[in-house]
Amino acid sequence: MKINSERIKKAQSLMREQGMIGIMIMTRDDYQYFFGETRVQPRAIIPAIGEPVFICFKAEEEEIRSALSDKEVKVFGHVGEQMSSVTKTFKSLIETTSGAPGFAFDGKPKVGMQMWFQTPAFLVDLFRKLNPQVELVPSDPVMDPLRMVKDQEEIENIRQAQKIAALGMDRLKEMLEPGRSGHELATEITYRMMTAGASGTSTPIHINSGIRSCWIHGKVDHEVINEGDLVVVDLTPKYQGYCGNLARTFVVGKPEAKQQKLIDTYFEIISATREALKPGVTVGRLDRITRGICIENGFEEYHLSGISHGIGLRFEETPASTILPHHKNVKIKENMVMTIGHTILAIPGYGGVRFEDVYLVTPDGGEILVDYSFEYNIK
Amino acid sequence: MKINSERIKKAQSLMREQGMIGIMIMTRDDYQYFFGETRVQPRAIIPAIGEPVFICFKAEEEEIRSALSDKEVKVFGHVGEQMSSVTKTFKSLIETTSGAPGFAFDGKPKVGMQMWFQTPAFLVDLFRKLNPQVELVPSDPVMDPLRMVKDQEEIENIRQAQKIAALGMDRLKEMLEPGRSGHELATEITYRMMTAGASGTSTPIHINSGIRSCWIHGKVDHEVINEGDLVVVDLTPKYQGYCGNLARTFVVGKPEAKQQKLIDTYFEIISATREALKPGVTVGRLDRITRGICIENGFEEYHLSGISHGIGLRFEETPASTILPHHKNVKIKENMVMTIGHTILAIPGYGGVRFEDVYLVTPDGGEILVDYSFEYNIK
Repeated sequence: MKINSERIKKAQSLMREQGMIGIMIMTRDDYQYFFGETRVQPRAIIPAIGEPVFICFKAEEEEIRSALSDKEVKVFGHVGEQMSSVTKTFKSLIETTSGAPGFAFDGKPKVGMQMWFQTPAFLVDLFRKLNPQVELVPSDPVMDPLRMVKDQEEIENIRQAQKIAALGMDRLKEMLEPGRSGHELATEITYRMMTAGASGTSTPIHINSGIRSCWIHGKVDHEVINEGDLVVVDLTPKYQGYCGNLARTFVVGKPEAKQQKLIDTYFEIISATREALKPGVTVGRLDRITRGICIENGFEEYHLSGISHGIGLRFEETPASTILPHHKNVKIKENMVMTIGHTILAIPGYGGVRFEDVYLVTPDGGEILVDYSFEYNIK
Repeated sequence: MKINSERIKKAQSLMREQGMIGIMIMTRDDYQYFFGETRVQPRAIIPAIGEPVFICFKAEEEEIRSALSDKEVKVFGHVGEQMSSVTKTFKSLIETTSGAPGFAFDGKPKVGMQMWFQTPAFLVDLFRKLNPQVELVPSDPVMDPLRMVKDQEEIENIRQAQKIAALGMDRLKEMLEPGRSGHELATEITYRMMTAGASGTSTPIHINSGIRSCWIHGKVDHEVINEGDLVVVDLTPKYQGYCGNLARTFVVGKPEAKQQKLIDTYFEIISATREALKPGVTVGRLDRITRGICIENGFEEYHLSGISHGIGLRFEETPASTILPHHKNVKIKENMVMTIGHTILAIPGYGGVRFEDVYLVTPDGGEILVDYSFEYNIK
């Protein structure tokens, strides 16, 4: 455990600005961000004023205490005790905070919580039921300003994840041929990436071939690759908690004119958006550039918004406009890490293409973290 | 796609009993249960009266339509369109349902949704905001009676997943020795299980050694196994969407008396709860049996509730009393598939043990799906 006091202090300052008396940490990514390690069921409260409180399973207490020295640790033996610790902590936080400067509550005091994919609906409903004295709100206004901009260690972890993705893609290229199934390929790619240090992938590996290359998301199954197929492959290995994201499209055989046009259009999109990926620009602007290129190439009706998203401890993180549409207005800053190539360019009933890489935002545009070949023609 | 009309009809009958005008399907497990395939972003509505409505990404429309013949398919290009399709469908459902027998709404009409780990909090909040005309409730009262009792095909899929888990455990036993890291072992186990047909695992592989064997959940990292360690290994491969769950504890070296006592107590627990796993019994009863054995062996303070849970398309499904405590009152029925050995028996600061298998409930007790060796002593 390596508690990051700097990040905690910044979060506390943002909590006070937002009128939150604390944030409830229940996801591995936020837990790792503040405390430098992951747990399967992480539970901690960071108050706006004071020290973090840890809530852990009773048989893990000794280990956590020894890493924490003077921090408060509450233990539980079952979910009821866990919830009751949380409720008690917030009740006492309301008391200690209510007299503090800037904490005159209009209505209920606010508590922040991450509300993304890692937070299950029933836990939020349960929290609300057991803590009617507080208003639960998304912790994004506290977490986003912190987590969007990456430090050097984070950038290197993402780069390493992306290097591992490249090894996985190399393995795919060695094996890709008609008759192989997606599952067979995914098995070998997973093994290659785990051997290189990936703990796993943040989304299932996508290998979508033929008409399935149209899919907005993907999966792997036992369908086989056929001659002439477009094959979209999307790899998202995790390394030290950080995510990579590398997608390539391959044509098994000689590309037809329509396949070639999709690919060429995508390359044009990447080149233009990458150049535009500078501080001050919004994700919405990148989408408008993409749309313009789609129109020029006669693909207007196939344009999808969301060409770029943030990446870090979550595979998709702020800005992620395909999940939270208002993120299209988020201003991009230096040292954010973003993908370009998130959306599929697909002709329904025919096929689709996607080439996705991870870029560091610099004043000169997107600096690719790992420069992986864009070769798409397999034999 | 293989639409299961029988299951849909049963669900509709339960919806009418529960006063739900429909259920919103947003998770892969429910989608597979009714429609025989998975999608990464499945969206469908099953109304209490009438045919299912599918909401799909526009480039997937043709493929879905061709599989569906006459069902209603609505398409979206982005999340806003998706949500608006949902809202329109429920508005029209309220109209068509409000005149039907048994559908006089007291207050708002109810809509069911799965609220477990696969349903992210923000989607539920968004649904509630966009559909204020309905009351969103857990779909469990409709889904539980259906999904708890397994048919023959489901049992065989779970058995196959469990056979794959056994192959993974064999691979572990070949490799387990001091100096190996959890990650190294997990890499080889994953490869073995995927080669045997697993799509992946439903939880990360757990390999907890030494003091970490106390953990209520687990993880894998680069820490190495030491001579004398208790090593808890938990494997949850998925096969055709169905989950296996096999846990074993190993002692690397000769067990000390305290390690031996933990193991012997756990064996006693398994034997007694397995015999009790009969129709009519509650999960709470299995926990009381477990507690009794812990008391007899001087381990009362280390007893945890939740020795058994349901398993199927979800790794933990109803009854799952460690997630939803009121499930301790669920009555077990014939042909339910349950694990025994879910909870760790751990002495804080020392170590813990767990041996988990999957059983079919029969009038004679739990019939183990795959009879895997309980050998625990490695060299």
